[in-house]
Amino acid sequence: MLKLSHRPDLVNIQTAHKEINAFIHRTPVMRSTSINEIAGCDIHFKCENFQKIGAFKMRGASCAGLSLSNEEKEKGLATHSSGNHAQAVALTAKLMGTKAYIVMPSNSPEIKKRATAGYGAEITFCEPTIEARKSTLDEVVRQTGATFIHPYDNYNVICGQATCAKEFHEDITDLDAIMAPIGGGGLMSGTALCTSYMRPTTRIYGAEPEIVNDAYLSLQKGEIVKNTRIDTIADGLRTNLSDKTFEIIREHVTEIFTVTEQEIVDAMRLIWERMKIIIEPSCSVPLAALLKNKSSFSGQKVGIILTGGNVDLGNLPF
Amino acid sequence: MLKLSHRPDLVNIQTAHKEINAFIHRTPVMRSTSINEIAGCDIHFKCENFQKIGAFKMRGASCAGLSLSNEEKEKGLATHSSGNHAQAVALTAKLMGTKAYIVMPSNSPEIKKRATAGYGAEITFCEPTIEARKSTLDEVVRQTGATFIHPYDNYNVICGQATCAKEFHEDITDLDAIMAPIGGGGLMSGTALCTSYMRPTTRIYGAEPEIVNDAYLSLQKGEIVKNTRIDTIADGLRTNLSDKTFEIIREHVTEIFTVTEQEIVDAMRLIWERMKIIIEPSCSVPLAALLKNKSSFSGQKVGIILTGGNVDLGNLPF
Repeated sequence: MLKLSHRPDLVNIQTAHKEINAFIHRTPVMRSTSINEIAGCDIHFKCENFQKIGAFKMRGASCAGLSLSNEEKEKGLATHSSGNHAQAVALTAKLMGTKAYIVMPSNSPEIKKRATAGYGAEITFCEPTIEARKSTLDEVVRQTGATFIHPYDNYNVICGQATCAKEFHEDITDLDAIMAPIGGGGLMSGTALCTSYMRPTTRIYGAEPEIVNDAYLSLQKGEIVKNTRIDTIADGLRTNLSDKTFEIIREHVTEIFTVTEQEIVDAMRLIWERMKIIIEPSCSVPLAALLKNKSSFSGQKVGIILTGGNVDLGNLPF
Repeated sequence: MLKLSHRPDLVNIQTAHKEINAFIHRTPVMRSTSINEIAGCDIHFKCENFQKIGAFKMRGASCAGLSLSNEEKEKGLATHSSGNHAQAVALTAKLMGTKAYIVMPSNSPEIKKRATAGYGAEITFCEPTIEARKSTLDEVVRQTGATFIHPYDNYNVICGQATCAKEFHEDITDLDAIMAPIGGGGLMSGTALCTSYMRPTTRIYGAEPEIVNDAYLSLQKGEIVKNTRIDTIADGLRTNLSDKTFEIIREHVTEIFTVTEQEIVDAMRLIWERMKIIIEPSCSVPLAALLKNKSSFSGQKVGIILTGGNVDLGNLPF
């Protein structure tokens, strides 16, 4: 896999999909008659909660890991993450036969701490602030020589995340719209790029919690706006857009919807009850947005990416 | 569909499978690398939690419903059930364009009450005793002329449940063993019969909670033994074997394992965390039994039927 210094094109995404094949599952697409009745449209859910490590992040991390030189690979991979990206980098390193150095905020969910350790990563805990994460990571990288894999401001990561939309459009060839949640924007920008190449008539929607609506505000203002609070239950969506993801999203995304915390919990519970699958709060945000804006999708075929299923069963919102 | 007055044979099962096609989903088979590592064998999970109404019971209820005469169909279907069989009869009646009359104990889980009502059934609540269920049902049948669909002591129901094993053996053709939980024994006897026809070398195991081990004791004693208590978390397995199911189970089942309540909860949580799917406590019983008896399955290919996913999210055991 090449180290990409530009937005991935379709050939990059196709190549990445082949090369990360052993690192990922091709996840199933599921439907629910009863949710369709409630929504008034035909929803296809791409189940990345069944992905390795339980989230789509495995796609981007492995695509970035495989782009390193042999010398870089030997020194290992590093990142800071409270969650799924940490596990993805840890498992990628394990499968590549090298080390992972993960900086995690001390208040990360137990399930994510245990899983990351379970993949053999060396974890350094830090205070739960962005500054502490960055400075601790800098120190880890200085000591080990490992390569920092940014969770989204990295064209190889974006290219890997784009393989999810590639599978989706291959399996369901006539989506009228595709929806994904927006955190740092890695999945959203990969989804948007891939859709613009493979099916340019499909409308592309992002969805965010109201209280971390940085992407929504950034699109309105035409420049990156950062979140002023991060206390959403959707713990995967607390991050801000980056330069690389913002540029792609502003160009390709049709609209960004925002939803309340209660709407997120209600949509999460609806999926648990009707579909019998476990999703984390971050990934019920697009369904919540759709149910809030039914008229935009009436009678249409809509694809929703269910991003992950790593939820702390000892600490559920219902 | 014929009304069966004898054990279903393979042709009956094949015919039933065709005729109930519009009433059921063909459910997927899933695997989990991490559970396989823990178990030391290769487990294939048949996901009836994704079945219509969220449980395998839809197979048997529809097979029984379709066997009624036109006159019987017109007067409707009736049953008593605290759970999944109620929903299955309710949806079967709805799809057949007739009425369902359901007697439910007043302490049934909320999710099951709401779902049954949601399918348009007429519900009569009764005291939570077997006697009250039967006498209330008798009264409902007397008043309406509806036909009682017994949850398991009915060869058409057994034949319908057998279609689950049929799909399983079609999709995974070389199972060394197949496991199912035992409540009244409808699924177990259907699974045993179908396996004896389609793949007689596959060993057939049942699994029960220790505190409702009526099937285990019945096999030991050579006659039906009834449960003396029913306070297991596995609410689908509180019932006793019937004449029809006992005769089939004693002839075909290799062995019945029993497990503790804690083992049931642990196995349920393991499936939720590792597979990201929602199953009810009753259906983690076979995995709990396998993990307790690993040496019997070492290195083998084992099929486990995950029977249902209707769990009250407001009342979880963890």
